[in-house]
Amino acid sequence: MATAPSVSYSMTVRLEVPASGTSVSQLTSAVEASGGSVTGLDVTASGHEKLRIDVTIAATSTSHADEIVEKLRGVEGVVLGKVSDRTFLMHLGGKIEMASKHPIRNRDDLSMIYTPGVARVCMAIAENPEDARRLTIKRNTVAVVTDGSAVLGLGNIGPMAAMPVMEGKAALFKRFADIDAWPICLDTQDTDEIVSIVKAIAPGFAGINLEDISAPRCFEIEARLREALDIPVFHDDQHGTAIVVLASLTNALRVVGKSIGDVRVVMSGAGAAGTAILKLLIAAGVKHAVVADIHGVVHAGREDLVSADAPGAGGAALRWIADNTNPEGVTGTLKEAVVGADVFIGVSAPNVLNGDDVAAMAEGSIVFALANPDPEVEPSIARQTAAVVATGRSDFPNQINNVLVFPGVFRGLLDAQSRTVNTEMMLAAASALADVVTEDELNPNYIIPSVFNDKVAGAVAGAVRTAAKAAGATVTGPTSA
Amino acid sequence: MATAPSVSYSMTVRLEVPASGTSVSQLTSAVEASGGSVTGLDVTASGHEKLRIDVTIAATSTSHADEIVEKLRGVEGVVLGKVSDRTFLMHLGGKIEMASKHPIRNRDDLSMIYTPGVARVCMAIAENPEDARRLTIKRNTVAVVTDGSAVLGLGNIGPMAAMPVMEGKAALFKRFADIDAWPICLDTQDTDEIVSIVKAIAPGFAGINLEDISAPRCFEIEARLREALDIPVFHDDQHGTAIVVLASLTNALRVVGKSIGDVRVVMSGAGAAGTAILKLLIAAGVKHAVVADIHGVVHAGREDLVSADAPGAGGAALRWIADNTNPEGVTGTLKEAVVGADVFIGVSAPNVLNGDDVAAMAEGSIVFALANPDPEVEPSIARQTAAVVATGRSDFPNQINNVLVFPGVFRGLLDAQSRTVNTEMMLAAASALADVVTEDELNPNYIIPSVFNDKVAGAVAGAVRTAAKAAGATVTGPTSA
Repeated sequence: MATAPSVSYSMTVRLEVPASGTSVSQLTSAVEASGGSVTGLDVTASGHEKLRIDVTIAATSTSHADEIVEKLRGVEGVVLGKVSDRTFLMHLGGKIEMASKHPIRNRDDLSMIYTPGVARVCMAIAENPEDARRLTIKRNTVAVVTDGSAVLGLGNIGPMAAMPVMEGKAALFKRFADIDAWPICLDTQDTDEIVSIVKAIAPGFAGINLEDISAPRCFEIEARLREALDIPVFHDDQHGTAIVVLASLTNALRVVGKSIGDVRVVMSGAGAAGTAILKLLIAAGVKHAVVADIHGVVHAGREDLVSADAPGAGGAALRWIADNTNPEGVTGTLKEAVVGADVFIGVSAPNVLNGDDVAAMAEGSIVFALANPDPEVEPSIARQTAAVVATGRSDFPNQINNVLVFPGVFRGLLDAQSRTVNTEMMLAAASALADVVTEDELNPNYIIPSVFNDKVAGAVAGAVRTAAKAAGATVTGPTSA
Repeated sequence: MATAPSVSYSMTVRLEVPASGTSVSQLTSAVEASGGSVTGLDVTASGHEKLRIDVTIAATSTSHADEIVEKLRGVEGVVLGKVSDRTFLMHLGGKIEMASKHPIRNRDDLSMIYTPGVARVCMAIAENPEDARRLTIKRNTVAVVTDGSAVLGLGNIGPMAAMPVMEGKAALFKRFADIDAWPICLDTQDTDEIVSIVKAIAPGFAGINLEDISAPRCFEIEARLREALDIPVFHDDQHGTAIVVLASLTNALRVVGKSIGDVRVVMSGAGAAGTAILKLLIAAGVKHAVVADIHGVVHAGREDLVSADAPGAGGAALRWIADNTNPEGVTGTLKEAVVGADVFIGVSAPNVLNGDDVAAMAEGSIVFALANPDPEVEPSIARQTAAVVATGRSDFPNQINNVLVFPGVFRGLLDAQSRTVNTEMMLAAASALADVVTEDELNPNYIIPSVFNDKVAGAVAGAVRTAAKAAGATVTGPTSA
């Protein structure tokens, strides 16, 4: 599938060109002839004979960027200077930092922030541990924990290479919910060790955001940490995705006028995200679901199911799916299963469906093709017969993006001083997110708000806070000084 | 020992007083009669009959503050309002936060900071792990790790109650060396577990500052982590203290005109700080040292020594001391040992010496009484016969404070991208710190600069950076983009 030039493959090229003649317009032509897009052109020095120009160019990929540079090198009279990659420039030295809330100007400041004054604050917490939420950063601080085993779509690239994602996540927590998050990238992929490490570091945090940990270990790690800790533990790849999918489905169903209890849902993908989406959809009222993985439809007769009592085994998740979906015992392929289906949700691989498959779905069908960057079905083709189409991409309508969820969810959990996060809170988050789109705004190309919609985080946070308080999951309010 | 009112026991008291008459002056008198000190007096509302006044008062202790409040309550016509503790107010919600280095204004920003652009940065690090120091926060980030087992002089108060100290430390790292530090307070005091946790969290950090971990576990934890990790591990309670003591001793010896190889040093305290000081002094050339603990002078014949091969046992540190000090085989009490000594260094307990003991030291004696808040000997009494006296307190000359050391040491280690920290680097740090005091400035009351001297961190950092590079301990420079 051809992709458009993107700012995420953006570079700035420094060039010297003759001051006279048509060199500058030739530059732009050369970029456009190569399929790139000039997004900025600054003359940074000018003389009688020469101009120095910084041209900012969006490409579609790294190799495409290289091609464009070669084309520029070939333009008559042009001398190629430094090529800077804008994305890399933004990551130089990392994207986040620690900041002190108070100036330390003199000995008086020092004696209150540090010794000897700090000792009294320590003793207050030692006497009443709940005061840590009042007198330390704990109440607004979240650990973003990964082992680097399933980073984006890049696979098991390890903890150090996962850092840029975790820093980005921390930056998003701050931007959208004023939460202080810090990346903790673990140099171990042992389940027991990860559980004991996260338990041990928990005192300084009011929440744990697990991130990019591969299935099936992510299920066991999350379950054991939830059991062990008195702060909420949330695996965003599972539940963040599930919440935004449910919110989107809620509004898509409004568009087509169908009810969640009636629709037949076919899912492609039985990994961490797929399993979490399925569970939340069932909790929200979906009664007719079928899940397919790479081996076809999951049904009770499949031989790769193992007992749900075998923790950590991938087959246990499949067993849960077989036990809780597909009551009709459908077998066969994904393509067979989608015939007549109302809803398709893909969290799997590119191009598992084509236009004919989507055309074979029921009238008023809904297609969420979330594989990134290449969806399960080309969205423009799906849109020819489906009533509503959504993807994970920013260059199509209806982008289903976790950024809509995790900041608000944690904001609500922290504000409620919640000790946990449960299904009711997630349902509340999905409902609040769906409701950000008003009846007047709702249409097939607008089922979910933009990530920059400034109502989103507050709406989600409020719903989660209320649900946490209703669940009695919160810490007793702060005590007196 | 009477202490002066301190801002670290400072409160603001809101009072309503009659607008006429002498109530206001009576307030000040009442505070001063109680031994407090009025440091601020603001009229925050005024009417014909009443004034509302916020009085800020420094006391000597919490109970003293309570006494002063009671005295104010007794002043005729005064109505007592809210009493705010200034130190606690500064700690509300914690003292540090996370900040994003770049604004996230629109989809373009998002696509470079987070997905999809971030994926290319991750892959660059996966292909060349050293790029993590270029493209993530790693290069400027230090973990401040504690288990809360020996916090300040407060003892084993646990990880949550240790948070205010660790946050304060992080704030000092930023203030004095522009380092991003984050507190990691561990809910375990098991040596093996602490070692494996710190190993696991290391990918996101360029240095580990161990803090307030009790002896003897701190020795083993540090030694094992240094062996395991490719980033420097520095237990500040040991080495920060040792470096500032050596710097101070260097300058004190200049004042009295003695040589480090000639002086007889008597130390009180064989804990983490005492052992580290002793080792660094020996590395710096001290040849005649005697150490006393609560059972008296450490000598080869003592029965509480255990083999140095028994890691983690306190007796192993004593065995090392016995093997490396006291060649004359002195036995007996601390008081006996200090007779005729040139240098006394106390990192132990209040009032183990008196004026007569100090008077019995050699001509031109040096006394470092570092127990906090109450020194080993009353400094004003020691000063009657000793040539140079230093303490850990801010209300006497020559405050020996780790804040002079750890920011610059880590700045130097990070700048050099050092994989380790060794004795040569610590000696270089001490020497650079001592040299901040010029020959013209040097005198018995100024052997060590103020923590707010803006030359300190840079001087220490430069010396450590040079020593790290000389030791070949540094990571290869950053590779090309």
